[in-house]
Amino acid sequence: MIKEIEARRSVRKYANRAVDDATIEHILESGRVAPSGSNTQPWHFIVIRNEEIKERVARVSHDQRWMLSAPVFIACVADIRSRLSTREEVVLDEESPQFELKQIIRDTAIAIEHLVLEATALGLGTCWVAWFRQNEVRPVLEIPKDKFLVAILTVGYAEDEPRPRKRKLFSEIVHHDRW
Amino acid sequence: MIKEIEARRSVRKYANRAVDDATIEHILESGRVAPSGSNTQPWHFIVIRNEEIKERVARVSHDQRWMLSAPVFIACVADIRSRLSTREEVVLDEESPQFELKQIIRDTAIAIEHLVLEATALGLGTCWVAWFRQNEVRPVLEIPKDKFLVAILTVGYAEDEPRPRKRKLFSEIVHHDRW
Repeated sequence: MIKEIEARRSVRKYANRAVDDATIEHILESGRVAPSGSNTQPWHFIVIRNEEIKERVARVSHDQRWMLSAPVFIACVADIRSRLSTREEVVLDEESPQFELKQIIRDTAIAIEHLVLEATALGLGTCWVAWFRQNEVRPVLEIPKDKFLVAILTVGYAEDEPRPRKRKLFSEIVHHDRW
Repeated sequence: MIKEIEARRSVRKYANRAVDDATIEHILESGRVAPSGSNTQPWHFIVIRNEEIKERVARVSHDQRWMLSAPVFIACVADIRSRLSTREEVVLDEESPQFELKQIIRDTAIAIEHLVLEATALGLGTCWVAWFRQNEVRPVLEIPKDKFLVAILTVGYAEDEPRPRKRKLFSEIVHHDRW
């Protein structure tokens, strides 16, 4: 198996060690080249190093204090404008029904997992965080109402090495020719 | 950059060469270990080799005949039951509003991209196909109404090597501290 897929863990405790800009850029490059439906590339990445903003992001993420040990957050935002031809007002939230929202979440998730694997290749730990509400996190990052924050990725050097978590068996998830 | 992320292309023309079961299992293993919200692992994979079923899947995918050159399809299905505590009836389609549907699409997309990268590592080509309607593809694969088909992955040895497609610049997608 690709060694980054095998080695990847969700890291919730980071070392007090900086991550330089070139490393973050290298990680973002892996997301930039990700595949997306009709090559629409609906993703935006907000690189957050400002401590006050990190603090406010953690607070609206159910006050997960462990997040603050990571020196960098990357807020990964999906833009529905990549799929819409109209200029009419759109407000997105957790219960929005649009198919286009599902498409941009799917595509942004692909790019985010590229960031995760590339960070792993560079010796960094990450964690997907998606426990927040759009209407609470949006103002903190000044994200327009027609965008959807898919996840905050915490990025840093791991302080400890989490053990792999249990997964379902093939017999529970693999089918042949039909469901 | 991880060489599979760099080398990955959407392959739409496959060689007349079989892919053995062990290889497919190896690819699926990379999806099995993918991360997901609260480790819910909402994904199911239907490995399709039956030519008649492949034919019907391609037909409901806007009759994309190129798909049939791939010896294997993997239908990647998200199961909302991993997120719901009720047993009440749910019917999912493109316009369903549930937040849980967005969560399982996100998580299944992560697993699918693991399959894509692992296939690349094994010298195979793949293509994400998501141009179909749930109500048309569902009966072909006998997928229950409370599941959502996120994508069909075509898998096989590439007949030609597509060139990389254009991507947005960092200046179009990267922000600092706020949008």
